[in-house]
Amino acid sequence: MNATAIIAASGVGKRMNLGGGRSKQMLEIGGFPVIHHTIKAFQEAASIKAICIATKAEHVETLRTMAREAGFTKVTTVIEGGEERQDSVGNCIRSIRDEAAAGKEMPEAILVHDGARPFIQPDEIDAIAALSLEYGASVPANRPKDTIKCIGTTPGFFGETLDRATLLQVQTPQGFKADILIKAHEQAAKEGRYATDDAALVERYFPANPIRIYETGYHNIKITTPEDLPMAEAIYSSLSKKR
Amino acid sequence: MNATAIIAASGVGKRMNLGGGRSKQMLEIGGFPVIHHTIKAFQEAASIKAICIATKAEHVETLRTMAREAGFTKVTTVIEGGEERQDSVGNCIRSIRDEAAAGKEMPEAILVHDGARPFIQPDEIDAIAALSLEYGASVPANRPKDTIKCIGTTPGFFGETLDRATLLQVQTPQGFKADILIKAHEQAAKEGRYATDDAALVERYFPANPIRIYETGYHNIKITTPEDLPMAEAIYSSLSKKR
Repeated sequence: MNATAIIAASGVGKRMNLGGGRSKQMLEIGGFPVIHHTIKAFQEAASIKAICIATKAEHVETLRTMAREAGFTKVTTVIEGGEERQDSVGNCIRSIRDEAAAGKEMPEAILVHDGARPFIQPDEIDAIAALSLEYGASVPANRPKDTIKCIGTTPGFFGETLDRATLLQVQTPQGFKADILIKAHEQAAKEGRYATDDAALVERYFPANPIRIYETGYHNIKITTPEDLPMAEAIYSSLSKKR
Repeated sequence: MNATAIIAASGVGKRMNLGGGRSKQMLEIGGFPVIHHTIKAFQEAASIKAICIATKAEHVETLRTMAREAGFTKVTTVIEGGEERQDSVGNCIRSIRDEAAAGKEMPEAILVHDGARPFIQPDEIDAIAALSLEYGASVPANRPKDTIKCIGTTPGFFGETLDRATLLQVQTPQGFKADILIKAHEQAAKEGRYATDDAALVERYFPANPIRIYETGYHNIKITTPEDLPMAEAIYSSLSKKR
């Protein structure tokens, strides 16, 4: 298995109310920045042979130094991200193609991950990589714990209640056969189309290729609000005990 | 404002893998059982004049003692719950009606809450009580953090991606004008119909009364899986610092 991980780490943490341009990935959990934990998981996943990170211009050098000092030898590329998350992933895809054009082996699968999800485990990464090769696309998800209702047509009031048994909360890393992800992004760039996530892009351009569900637990949270930080510490110490 | 709280505390914590018939509400956070925190919030909410708790037969005496020793003076009733959560709420409603028939003032509003949601705050309870009187029904909810997809028609594969901007995760306490909730439960009992929650019952029998959304933060979690316990401790200490 030869998979490349793309880590989208440009998040400026708007929802975190961080001052001074601090990124949510630079917040610390267990003494290390969020992004450190994220990269470490991919470094330790056997299926991953290379890691390409897109981040804000001012963090490119920081992350290169972090990778070198932490011995994250699979980090081959740290580049500047784009305006939207999809643009950042697109930048990484172009970098992967450029390297292949320059003679480096093209990966079989590409996994796209949120830098702000530090608790994904190496064995989960390997499982998603394997499923994405087998089915063309595989995405981790879990069941919503709460009932999900629609917002109604009158603002401020509920509409329909959805059947929770039919719903899944989608996470990352989202894994794809390399050519599927690349073609979906190229087509989207051509049409100037933006989607919720990479799975939605692939659904649009490869409707005949249903995406395989990889059902996970509740540890793979995305750190987006201040409330997440104490939770993140709790999950971190709980996972540390298990390892 | 004269509102009564119904606390459904029969949860046996099936998903918690608790041995020996232990209830998830009896697990401790910050040195007190989950249910203690839950009752305390309603005790401290100005709008709440009485608290009726439905629990497992073997916990009735425990909870009565807890309420007495903790000075939870608003706890007027602790009774045995039914087979399903809806049956437990129904038992409490019958108790409220019996007391009214015996001369006690009927509450204007009834708020139904999960015993396993210990972090609801007194000011949130008061806000929901006020909205439920104003609009007939009001339910707390927040935005899903993750993309929500449907499970597809082929098992193991995703179907449609839902527009996250139109979705809400529903919590408790769910507040209603007393007569609306009572009539909805009576009708459901007559028809032997069970619904996801009290809001869904009221939607069914009072379709002309849309339910007011009360948007909340992410602290009002339900403790349902072992992963929730460290998170619960983290939320608890974070909330304790704020108070």
